[in-house]
Amino acid sequence: MTDPLAPAAPSEGEAHASLLDPALEAAILQAVEDGFDAQIGFTCDLVRFASRRGAERPAQEWLARQLSDRGYGVKSFLVDLAKIHDHPGFSPVTVDYRDALNVIATHEPRTPRGKSLILNGHMDVVPEGPLDMWQVSPPYEPKIVDGWLHGRGAGDMKAGIAANVFALDALRRLGYQPAARVHIQSVVEEECTGNGALACLVEGYTADAAIIPEPEDERLVRANVGVLWFEVLVAGHPVHVREAGSGANAIEASFRVIESLKRLTEAWNGEKHACPPFADHPHPINFNLGQIEGGDWASSVPSWCRMNCRIAIYPGDDPKDRARQIEEHLARDLAGDSFLGNRPPQITWNGFFARGFVLPDNTEAEQALARAHRRATGSDLETMVSTAYLDARVFVIYADIPCLVYGPVTRGIHGFDERVSLASVKRITGAIALFIASWCGLEPIDV
Amino acid sequence: MTDPLAPAAPSEGEAHASLLDPALEAAILQAVEDGFDAQIGFTCDLVRFASRRGAERPAQEWLARQLSDRGYGVKSFLVDLAKIHDHPGFSPVTVDYRDALNVIATHEPRTPRGKSLILNGHMDVVPEGPLDMWQVSPPYEPKIVDGWLHGRGAGDMKAGIAANVFALDALRRLGYQPAARVHIQSVVEEECTGNGALACLVEGYTADAAIIPEPEDERLVRANVGVLWFEVLVAGHPVHVREAGSGANAIEASFRVIESLKRLTEAWNGEKHACPPFADHPHPINFNLGQIEGGDWASSVPSWCRMNCRIAIYPGDDPKDRARQIEEHLARDLAGDSFLGNRPPQITWNGFFARGFVLPDNTEAEQALARAHRRATGSDLETMVSTAYLDARVFVIYADIPCLVYGPVTRGIHGFDERVSLASVKRITGAIALFIASWCGLEPIDV
Repeated sequence: MTDPLAPAAPSEGEAHASLLDPALEAAILQAVEDGFDAQIGFTCDLVRFASRRGAERPAQEWLARQLSDRGYGVKSFLVDLAKIHDHPGFSPVTVDYRDALNVIATHEPRTPRGKSLILNGHMDVVPEGPLDMWQVSPPYEPKIVDGWLHGRGAGDMKAGIAANVFALDALRRLGYQPAARVHIQSVVEEECTGNGALACLVEGYTADAAIIPEPEDERLVRANVGVLWFEVLVAGHPVHVREAGSGANAIEASFRVIESLKRLTEAWNGEKHACPPFADHPHPINFNLGQIEGGDWASSVPSWCRMNCRIAIYPGDDPKDRARQIEEHLARDLAGDSFLGNRPPQITWNGFFARGFVLPDNTEAEQALARAHRRATGSDLETMVSTAYLDARVFVIYADIPCLVYGPVTRGIHGFDERVSLASVKRITGAIALFIASWCGLEPIDV
Repeated sequence: MTDPLAPAAPSEGEAHASLLDPALEAAILQAVEDGFDAQIGFTCDLVRFASRRGAERPAQEWLARQLSDRGYGVKSFLVDLAKIHDHPGFSPVTVDYRDALNVIATHEPRTPRGKSLILNGHMDVVPEGPLDMWQVSPPYEPKIVDGWLHGRGAGDMKAGIAANVFALDALRRLGYQPAARVHIQSVVEEECTGNGALACLVEGYTADAAIIPEPEDERLVRANVGVLWFEVLVAGHPVHVREAGSGANAIEASFRVIESLKRLTEAWNGEKHACPPFADHPHPINFNLGQIEGGDWASSVPSWCRMNCRIAIYPGDDPKDRARQIEEHLARDLAGDSFLGNRPPQITWNGFFARGFVLPDNTEAEQALARAHRRATGSDLETMVSTAYLDARVFVIYADIPCLVYGPVTRGIHGFDERVSLASVKRITGAIALFIASWCGLEPIDV
């Protein structure tokens, strides 16, 4: 008598991912259900770490222990600037990487049979902003209200990291493990440079496909923009405020730089028809003035102002070309400015310098995810284009790995009261578990 | 044989300041000249103290020792908020006053005969700004180039504090001391609240006249503006940058608050004809956006932005009325703003809340200074109106003391490469010494 839950052996020469037995599918989804309370607890544990940029290490070390306890071979390594600096996907860095720790857990099958997989997620979270604007719970105190788990990083993307781990756990609960190599990657620097995922690639980690459960409302990302970060420094000679009319106010001059960059942004949006994935998007290129600091004293005309900005570029654009366009645009557009014409703003490329990507249509990996998604959710898999940076560009552009960005429904990411739908997390965890089973194949844990 | 240097005894009932013997005048100016190298050294010593707000204490304690060594009775006292809080000249405070030390040295005459005097100066200096913009010398390393003493505070107003001390020293060098009580005051908080000078008044220090050698290009200040400081906080709910169009960017909203405040500023300038001292001034009311800080991350739409602002008001204006006008103007002017209309900026009055003053015309003190100035410089004393705050308002408004703001030629105060003309410092020191001799009268140091 055959075990009804046993994965179907692939036919000889079968090119596509295995079709799973419906009973096995049901068992996998039930195993996800059975582990879901533990998965919520695990996600809450992750949310309790304030793993902002440069402070990911305690969370990464905790995760490494969790993965090691599960029997995976775990490798943790610091991002080494010397190793990635000359890679075309490298972004400039203005911070110290002494704690920029990537964690990779590896499952090695006993009898490799299926296709290998990377389950990737990022541990870094964006700053939480003023605490008094968190109305449901403080940012690092996870709280569940009406089926939503609240907390900074809950959706972006600690629920995704947990989903990767618990999708494999669900298979183990049934006595199975993937019949192919699987790497669980937890990386740093996704919110600022993308150098964490890049460092994994440079270390040699590749696979036949990758999944990143970013908060994408259960849709698959078909294409995304590239992103550039830059600092604008405006500096000039101030005077006593009694002569305010004669002095160059560096903060007010900075406002004019922003107006100029917004004009450029609209010009770039006008180019969208040349980029098919974004041709119908209402506003693919977003510019953001995210941070400002300037001046020393209410009664001194400010002599300096520093701004941190972010702008998108189209997939296909070379960051170098777009960076030069920004510099040339500002020089031309501000040439007649009474202050800035003589003291052009200084641009420093201080973070993302990243291309966008387009996921090839209808890959085998996408087909497998579509089947898994349909089985887990009852709905067809929809695709979307993303106007935010994604680490998937590392896999797609620099290693030709189909990378499926697909994750749960969220609200308020990068804002306040960030939250993730637990029902959605359960669905996408089920879909990922089904995907693993079909993509990698399964083998019993015990021989 | 009478001593040609002896001061003329005042006639009985003589109301005006004594007319000095020309030989005595010449001797006093020569004594200033003789002490001038030491005065420069003393001024340089003061410049070496980075006596920014909250950090004046070491400089004040050093000065107290210098004054004590000269034999003055010296009293140092912390500004006590409880004592000044209900005074109408009080400005709101957002910092700790634990080191806000005022220093007052008092000369008591043996035989009081002339009119008493306060020689006032402030020890606080404004922030130095980015160090790389100081091209001649670092801000707290005094350096003399072509007759100009460079350094933060050199002109505003450590040269003035030194002038007060060395004007008296010059008289002592001739064997004389004032024949009336003289207080040398060195106060804190002139650049931000005016509470230092106010605290001295509240302690009970008054006199028949006061001199403040602020950097006024050897002119007498006839009137000045009042000043208000305030913080503007703009806060709202941001979103992920991929939805930048739908989020309220608090920094960009702040720009609109500034534009609105500049409209108000022009309306206030339009009222200048109602204020005779400023009726012919091209632009009496200056607004300054002096400091800005907002947002947390290039890739998050900023949820908050905080600005420190300064605006002038006319002498005669009540700060409370003008503060209310600002609040009402913003509420009205921004009511239609898509973001600010729903989330009005929050205004906090966090510093200067000070009236302007008008010095009564042609007081006896002014006449005495005009004579002293003419004798020391060979020129007639010119008057001016000031569009900056001055502690003189404390004396003039709240104690009816004629306060003569009159000091050296400077460049770059509140900016970079601040410097004071040493030739000018010598001239105004001579004028102050002559003023003291005529206003207070002189008596021999030794009986």
